[in-house]
Amino acid sequence: MTPADGSPPRKTPLWRSIADALTNDIASGRYRPGDRLPTEAELSARFGVNRHTVRRGLAALAEAGLTHARRGAGVFVAQSPTDYPIGRRVRFHQNIRAAGRLPAKKLLLVETRAADPREAELLRLAPGTEVLVSEGISLADDQPVALFRSIFPVTRLPGLQDSLARLSSITLALRDNGIPDYTRAWTRITAKLANAHQAVQLQLREGDPILRTTSLNVDPDGQPLEYGRTWFSGDRVTLTLGEEDET
Amino acid sequence: MTPADGSPPRKTPLWRSIADALTNDIASGRYRPGDRLPTEAELSARFGVNRHTVRRGLAALAEAGLTHARRGAGVFVAQSPTDYPIGRRVRFHQNIRAAGRLPAKKLLLVETRAADPREAELLRLAPGTEVLVSEGISLADDQPVALFRSIFPVTRLPGLQDSLARLSSITLALRDNGIPDYTRAWTRITAKLANAHQAVQLQLREGDPILRTTSLNVDPDGQPLEYGRTWFSGDRVTLTLGEEDET
Repeated sequence: MTPADGSPPRKTPLWRSIADALTNDIASGRYRPGDRLPTEAELSARFGVNRHTVRRGLAALAEAGLTHARRGAGVFVAQSPTDYPIGRRVRFHQNIRAAGRLPAKKLLLVETRAADPREAELLRLAPGTEVLVSEGISLADDQPVALFRSIFPVTRLPGLQDSLARLSSITLALRDNGIPDYTRAWTRITAKLANAHQAVQLQLREGDPILRTTSLNVDPDGQPLEYGRTWFSGDRVTLTLGEEDET
Repeated sequence: MTPADGSPPRKTPLWRSIADALTNDIASGRYRPGDRLPTEAELSARFGVNRHTVRRGLAALAEAGLTHARRGAGVFVAQSPTDYPIGRRVRFHQNIRAAGRLPAKKLLLVETRAADPREAELLRLAPGTEVLVSEGISLADDQPVALFRSIFPVTRLPGLQDSLARLSSITLALRDNGIPDYTRAWTRITAKLANAHQAVQLQLREGDPILRTTSLNVDPDGQPLEYGRTWFSGDRVTLTLGEEDET
């Protein structure tokens, strides 16, 4: 059907024009990786179309992998994953800064409790000895990249609980307790699917890929310092081995 | 309701008794990790119940994580994941043997083609130089554990295509071509979800977790030998770092 004004028939649906305009905005750098796009209401005002049409345009961007929605937070321009070296010295803040992003940690829990048998064995403690548990979320540029749970032999590091509450960096908290350096004894890596809890905390969908690491850090004498488990977003983090030695 | 014969009311549903019996069989070692359970028809004969009841009992085992179904192959007793060291020297056959399993490789493709820009860069070849591509499935005890794709600088290793066709081990094929040793320059690790193709090849379900590694192996002079990409089943393999140095 030809419109009454004699203009040629519209070949491009409205939602497609909106997707194209936003794709150009991303390509030109108006919206950069990690940026939040304007809300549906704002886009609907900008393009003079209804929200349904905006939503369809946004769906096309997401399908093309250019954006991703974060539950309750909006639509974001996709980022390339952050490289995260897991060599001899694994340092969260340093790793994220080296990737050009701003590191932060959000503590969800710091408490002491009795070690379970596995924790006691790995930390070389008598079964049931008190350990310090620290759980939280690691962020890069305000985006959650990992959940962590660290178990420390608090009987050997009595001041650590206070230090961890004050300092977001484990490296600084350990230094505060007389440990100038520590190294990674071993790391075990597997792939999992995000459960509901992890999805909420990491702002992912349930069933999204997760890189799970289990690791032991030791002091310069080989004494266990930290038994840790970390759940990285598989879409946001690439673990790297070896490359950091060359840079 | 009390049965007519005066026996006490049945508290345990039939399917539950079957699940319990099979759980005991697994616990006692009658069926060991990796074993295939009898077929539904066989179990239905053994327990004197219909297949629907057997199926419900099997579903309970799977839910408890004791078994897993493999498409078209049957129901298998769950295994703990195979540890796969990714240190300085990554050797598939050696790694699988060290885990007490039998290694094998099934080649799907060996061909030469022009290098893409990324391959050329990493293998330090002029763009478009011919490379050798080898693709296949890695197995442990006949169970697929990974898909692999390796790219070799065939202009530097003209005999490699023949060697790879004869020898399933890359280590042996390289030795055959005058390379006595090689080391891992770097590895990059991420988590993905299995796509339909990978699910079929690895006998997984689409959306199951995958550990994807990208890596470069180099000869003793640091010359690139193999640019590889491997998709490990996240349920069947745990990548390990550091531990192997101690054993």
